[in-house]
Amino acid sequence: MSDSKPLHMSPEEFRRQGHAVVDWIADYYSRIETLPVLSRVPPGEIRANLPKHPPQQGEPFERVFADVERIIMPGITHWQSPNFYAFFPTSTSGPAILGDLLSTGLGVQGMLWSTSPACTELETHVLDWLVPMLGLPEKFLSSSTGGGVIHDTASSASLCALLAARERATQYGSNRKGCDGRLVAYASTQTHSSVEKAVKIAGLGSDNLRAIEVDQNFALRTDALARQIDADKKAGLVPCFVCATLGTTSSNAIDPVREIGRLCRENNLWLHVDSAMSGTAALCPEFRFLHDGVEFADSYCFNPHKWMLTNFDCDCFYVADRKHLIQTLSVLPEYLRNQATESGAVIDYRDWQIPLGRRFRSLKLWFVIRHYGIEGLQQHVREHVRIAQQFADWVRDDSRFELAAPVLLNLICFRLRSGDDENQKLMECLNQSGSLYLTHTKLDGKFTLRLCVGQTNTKSRHVERAWQLIQQTAAQLDKS
Amino acid sequence: MSDSKPLHMSPEEFRRQGHAVVDWIADYYSRIETLPVLSRVPPGEIRANLPKHPPQQGEPFERVFADVERIIMPGITHWQSPNFYAFFPTSTSGPAILGDLLSTGLGVQGMLWSTSPACTELETHVLDWLVPMLGLPEKFLSSSTGGGVIHDTASSASLCALLAARERATQYGSNRKGCDGRLVAYASTQTHSSVEKAVKIAGLGSDNLRAIEVDQNFALRTDALARQIDADKKAGLVPCFVCATLGTTSSNAIDPVREIGRLCRENNLWLHVDSAMSGTAALCPEFRFLHDGVEFADSYCFNPHKWMLTNFDCDCFYVADRKHLIQTLSVLPEYLRNQATESGAVIDYRDWQIPLGRRFRSLKLWFVIRHYGIEGLQQHVREHVRIAQQFADWVRDDSRFELAAPVLLNLICFRLRSGDDENQKLMECLNQSGSLYLTHTKLDGKFTLRLCVGQTNTKSRHVERAWQLIQQTAAQLDKS
Repeated sequence: MSDSKPLHMSPEEFRRQGHAVVDWIADYYSRIETLPVLSRVPPGEIRANLPKHPPQQGEPFERVFADVERIIMPGITHWQSPNFYAFFPTSTSGPAILGDLLSTGLGVQGMLWSTSPACTELETHVLDWLVPMLGLPEKFLSSSTGGGVIHDTASSASLCALLAARERATQYGSNRKGCDGRLVAYASTQTHSSVEKAVKIAGLGSDNLRAIEVDQNFALRTDALARQIDADKKAGLVPCFVCATLGTTSSNAIDPVREIGRLCRENNLWLHVDSAMSGTAALCPEFRFLHDGVEFADSYCFNPHKWMLTNFDCDCFYVADRKHLIQTLSVLPEYLRNQATESGAVIDYRDWQIPLGRRFRSLKLWFVIRHYGIEGLQQHVREHVRIAQQFADWVRDDSRFELAAPVLLNLICFRLRSGDDENQKLMECLNQSGSLYLTHTKLDGKFTLRLCVGQTNTKSRHVERAWQLIQQTAAQLDKS
Repeated sequence: MSDSKPLHMSPEEFRRQGHAVVDWIADYYSRIETLPVLSRVPPGEIRANLPKHPPQQGEPFERVFADVERIIMPGITHWQSPNFYAFFPTSTSGPAILGDLLSTGLGVQGMLWSTSPACTELETHVLDWLVPMLGLPEKFLSSSTGGGVIHDTASSASLCALLAARERATQYGSNRKGCDGRLVAYASTQTHSSVEKAVKIAGLGSDNLRAIEVDQNFALRTDALARQIDADKKAGLVPCFVCATLGTTSSNAIDPVREIGRLCRENNLWLHVDSAMSGTAALCPEFRFLHDGVEFADSYCFNPHKWMLTNFDCDCFYVADRKHLIQTLSVLPEYLRNQATESGAVIDYRDWQIPLGRRFRSLKLWFVIRHYGIEGLQQHVREHVRIAQQFADWVRDDSRFELAAPVLLNLICFRLRSGDDENQKLMECLNQSGSLYLTHTKLDGKFTLRLCVGQTNTKSRHVERAWQLIQQTAAQLDKS
């Protein structure tokens, strides 16, 4: 590095380069539909284009930034394309990107209230806003016994819920004494893999996770759950935790939370409700049936980064009684002691999560809620549900295809009647076309395509074109 | 929302507002020294200024953004002020902010290689670059048996290391069968609180974490560790994990990794090395003594978000043998199956971490390394160490004060000789002045001030002024 070049980027240089990056992003969204949705590079190709050794001297920003287009872009699968229907989306939006930019620019770390009061208080406030917005029970409010916190993902939320459940069931002994192999957790066969991962991490062991059978709609069977709890109790085990899902990953199935909740209450089990994808739908009164029975939950989460236009990562995690969570996750070394904490008048969110440090994530969520307003968010959800229902009708009207599960909201599970191989081929052809990206699951043992309408800019015309392409491709496969 | 207003922000509107946010951040860094470092708001004041209810209709971006200055800024503790000396810093830089902005704009989620090959391959590549840059052992390279991954924080890295250790010690049985209360972990009395938290989370129980005594420099005593391991084995317990720290939070103490490593190898214990703050110093050959013995480590982490100019969150976590980590954290539900994964030719980083989803964090790290180059990063570290040593000299030369621990790198632990109350008062006066922010710890049972020189823009003049203020404030306290 020559002596004439300052080490750090000056505010003026930052301003200039920042405008260039913003312009690039604006242009990216303008051209995104011209790019193949699923990246086409083979394994190793991106690395092969990167220099083997890091640079000895610093390089001009322009040169670094140019390599994004040249080296990185071919290796991008475009999650923000309106033709992205895979997995569940992680949808973003202009206000979310700018709120996150502001968070990055401020660079505060909100582990304690005192390390930036606004970081904690805005988070508490916005999570309180969401309680009535989603028709959630009042006990989740910070002004009641509970409260909300932003986690990175629903995986982390499930883990924290399980840890609090484990502690409560052992009368706050498992943190100190460790697990004893008698604790049992329950979920359905359709529950997200993160619950199995959490059960392993928390030391219960996956042998102590019961995968409860589901009904014809892939929803957990409460009668089977009740039988299993009884059997485990008789065997001298200690049931402690149930995860119910509102909108499973495979097929958007809705577990009967009210029934499960009653059962949990009778048996003193912690009920965690995972509504990662579908929770956002409850913004609309007509979809609020989703949250029926959630007043029985000890904890609940949904992901604004999925369908509520707030970029990844942003999971909102609520507890009905915050003292269980805090007692479970609290640490207080000398170097973190401070007056505000000791006064008891503030929330220190480091006691509500796994890591110590935390970003100022509520800024992006606040920007989104204010930019769209409740009505704008509702309009967004309604339009996606409308489009998805239209797609489901097209599937119903084509005798080559069948729907594999009820289409409740914005996820369509469908397949060719002609069998697994044909469906797998269909999916591969569609994804290789670059025109769209969708993924699969297995339902009733059969290979099933999943199309989720959830990306910010997905409109009727995109889904129409997707269906045309699916029909054409199916016809070509049928001929060959 | 009126019909005339489009629901989503258009690319052109994003461009305009994005420039405004970039300008605001540039201006923020220009004026940051005029702001009180530690926020002065009392608990509840930020919330009191926020509207009680979320807006029904969307609001213009200008109005939302104006509230940042009006409502949020008084509640910010300025981590990016050059007068921030508290805790450990989370330093950012122009290229890091812009790399992160790009990540947010692209909005990709890199749980699998296939969900954006560039997100995975750039991460692997940049983490490989850092191995020789820091003088780390070759086994940490992805081309060897190991590899690196970006986590949010060192807390998460420690937890994953412990989980892999737990699995290895139980011959891959604890994930399935749960913990049995016989596993034991070891750290020093000075180890970060995240290790205690990890031991609780992983179901070992904090009763099974041994806090090993330290020597006069606050470094772990290997003889005490050896005795404890023997005692535990004789008691029928199963020692499985040691965390050694290179640069403890309280005083930057350096545990003797080579000796500890030999002991771990003899006893088949997993050695995790936490170098969250100080690892960055090893960029300079003259400070590479830090990493002496790291070849004995099974895992290692350091945080570029602390001292390597890459904004939070960015922890680099390495393992010597990736199969232990992957076997421990892997899940593969049907809906995540894909050809690339099944080929075995790619890394799927969701098996290297707690959550499933992940941001494209390597972009910011790549931008930083290229912007500064190895020499620029070295220059940055050297200057901070030089300034910190100068500060230590000033403390030595003032008979009212004493150093409480060796000053190895950029952290100075010091105190007035006159006792705890005086030191606490001194800290409170300094922080209330708004001119700087520092925090405390206890060493040898005494209240001790910590001053860490690590914020990006901290220069000699800031530390000179800090010392003047400390001297003046001490003199005033002495008089009153």
